[in-house]
Amino acid sequence: MATVPLLTDAEVSAEALAVFADIRATRGTDHINNFWRALAHDPATLAATWARLKAVMAPGALDPLVKEMLYIAVSTANGCAYCIHSHTAAARAKGMSAAQHGELLAAIGMAMQTNGLVSALQVPIDAAFDAGAPENIS
Amino acid sequence: MATVPLLTDAEVSAEALAVFADIRATRGTDHINNFWRALAHDPATLAATWARLKAVMAPGALDPLVKEMLYIAVSTANGCAYCIHSHTAAARAKGMSAAQHGELLAAIGMAMQTNGLVSALQVPIDAAFDAGAPENIS
Amino acid sequence: MATVPLLTDAEVSAEALAVFADIRATRGTDHINNFWRALAHDPATLAATWARLKAVMAPGALDPLVKEMLYIAVSTANGCAYCIHSHTAAARAKGMSAAQHGELLAAIGMAMQTNGLVSALQVPIDAAFDAGAPENIS
Amino acid sequence: MATVPLLTDAEVSAEALAVFADIRATRGTDHINNFWRALAHDPATLAATWARLKAVMAPGALDPLVKEMLYIAVSTANGCAYCIHSHTAAARAKGMSAAQHGELLAAIGMAMQTNGLVSALQVPIDAAFDAGAPENIS
Amino acid sequence: MATVPLLTDAEVSAEALAVFADIRATRGTDHINNFWRALAHDPATLAATWARLKAVMAPGALDPLVKEMLYIAVSTANGCAYCIHSHTAAARAKGMSAAQHGELLAAIGMAMQTNGLVSALQVPIDAAFDAGAPENIS
Amino acid sequence: MATVPLLTDAEVSAEALAVFADIRATRGTDHINNFWRALAHDPATLAATWARLKAVMAPGALDPLVKEMLYIAVSTANGCAYCIHSHTAAARAKGMSAAQHGELLAAIGMAMQTNGLVSALQVPIDAAFDAGAPENIS
Repeated sequence: MATVPLLTDAEVSAEALAVFADIRATRGTDHINNFWRALAHDPATLAATWARLKAVMAPGALDPLVKEMLYIAVSTANGCAYCIHSHTAAARAKGMSAAQHGELLAAIGMAMQTNGLVSALQVPIDAAFDAGAPENIS
Repeated sequence: MATVPLLTDAEVSAEALAVFADIRATRGTDHINNFWRALAHDPATLAATWARLKAVMAPGALDPLVKEMLYIAVSTANGCAYCIHSHTAAARAKGMSAAQHGELLAAIGMAMQTNGLVSALQVPIDAAFDAGAPENIS
Repeated sequence: MATVPLLTDAEVSAEALAVFADIRATRGTDHINNFWRALAHDPATLAATWARLKAVMAPGALDPLVKEMLYIAVSTANGCAYCIHSHTAAARAKGMSAAQHGELLAAIGMAMQTNGLVSALQVPIDAAFDAGAPENIS
Repeated sequence: MATVPLLTDAEVSAEALAVFADIRATRGTDHINNFWRALAHDPATLAATWARLKAVMAPGALDPLVKEMLYIAVSTANGCAYCIHSHTAAARAKGMSAAQHGELLAAIGMAMQTNGLVSALQVPIDAAFDAGAPENIS
Repeated sequence: MATVPLLTDAEVSAEALAVFADIRATRGTDHINNFWRALAHDPATLAATWARLKAVMAPGALDPLVKEMLYIAVSTANGCAYCIHSHTAAARAKGMSAAQHGELLAAIGMAMQTNGLVSALQVPIDAAFDAGAPENIS
Repeated sequence: MATVPLLTDAEVSAEALAVFADIRATRGTDHINNFWRALAHDPATLAATWARLKAVMAPGALDPLVKEMLYIAVSTANGCAYCIHSHTAAARAKGMSAAQHGELLAAIGMAMQTNGLVSALQVPIDAAFDAGAPENIS
């Protein structure tokens, strides 16, 4: 159950409907997932979120599949069930193999583990890692 | 400051020194970073952590650079300063460009934002995302 | 499903029942929500938690509605589904409008995003922000 | 130390410099804080983040001071030291009194505590909280 | 619903089945819980995770029940519903009394609260806590 | 640097000074650590927090050392540097051995890892774990 009702196409504003249209055109599907139907209560936030997501997740210096996996990694650390489901589905749609999924999970599990060990040990940062040091300014 | 002293080569056990030797050989550097020097108080955990990290981060179905970026994504969501520094340095050493770093940050920021929106909205998971559904079992 | 059974009025101790009575009187409703029914297994923690909550959420220098929204913000970052639902319901009961809810969500999403960017960038704190500096001691 | 060098006005691109100019004009100060100097490595993310922040934090259905306190609440739950410092300074600049700060902290501490109790108890959500139920759709 | 199908004994690889056999022998039950059935898609991660868990949770300088409670504490802070359920069940199986459960919850709630207060206050670490200081090196 | 100045004994209110006196008497030391000096700006929260902490951390069904380790576990998952330092120092003062510290860290690291794996896999909770089921109500 959501904290707001999920809005149907008939219930959203014209501004929100235009965003839905762009989501449909960009993704090549008529399906609008629940996140956007919940967010449609606030058309300005809906429009800004979709516009930025579309730009950020587009092909660039990183492959879109890599971006989906990064999304899964962040969502897992934050425990966002919906986000993990939606981006795992998106990663599969972009070609993620079972082997890649397995390595993604292993990397996440490893990072979680050493994050915990480092945090409990309060390890001081090695000077060698400092990108802000004068010698590292190109 | 750490919650345990960082151990020098002269202070660690033989078992820990053997792990240090493998870290040096695998990475091709004499530098042992502070995490391992703190973890060396418990040689069994040091050995198990290094062995698993070495296996998980090796080339496979995912590129080692992608794995470093996944590590940064998890570490950022967890706010682990040491981990962010060490894996950003590692990603650079493995060829991460400034443009890739920028897209990594943008993807992390976007994921954090929609994680928050989804969480506050408590969006129910679309049935279409369910990998455990019978029709999705290959 | 909970990790402990939810206790009915007939099952709780006299000490817990007295807390339930104060919750009912303070809130003007007979309904005791599930959190208190789960917490009633430990009457001392139930009593201490309710007493402190009642004091903290009362009108003061901040409006009770603002306090409910702060509660939603923390609960969202922590991903506490129950807390998000209960405090969103409470905020609505205290007059939160749809527009206010929308701005609350937008602020949370923005904070999550810049938290992630700042964390990944490991931005050093500006000296100008330091409240502990001598010149800031009034 | 940051994972990227902080850029001076002389080092940033023209696009980033235009964002800096708008930050200065909007805030009525020449000071550009470190976050923007770190983000300036990626002018597109800098511009998008500032544009959205400016819109989200502007006066609306919620007071700008309330929005700063919401930002502090999220940043605290995420443990983002920089964000806590910068938004506490911003809240003070917008008039947050010591009494309001105290109540903000008390509300955050209370929310953290009950988030933990609810999480450990895995309390099921009361049906009464369901905004998505048909009877709650206005 | 999971992001991967849960595998039956008939569906897993020989390597995974051997891990299942060791779980059954170690725990003295035929029941394999869902975590392992999901993880079985990646036999290497399944085997490594089980081997390490078995070693870490075994009796040692800390009692196995204490270790289960530590697991609950971490899982609660991370909001991992499955983990909280499974380790609360495991703690009960190892003898956790209702009074111990109550004190566990109270300690978790207290830690969450002061974590939040400390984070919002950004309290500097007392020099007296520094284990890395020369005088603390035994 | 803190978001508020740390208050000296000469600067705090009479109510806060009385709390300081009880901290000193209870702990058998004149040292008041920075957390309480920051919290003293709000005497009511200082008094309530100390009173509850004193009760929660006292001997009971769980050993005080176990409670300190639970505190470290929660603080580590939350990444609260101050809390990790202060409670590690407290645990040592209560007799935590190096071997116990090592096992504490290993348990935390393991929990973090499986929390991540479970979260990414979105494992459904086994019916066998349900304490709220009628057959589990004693």
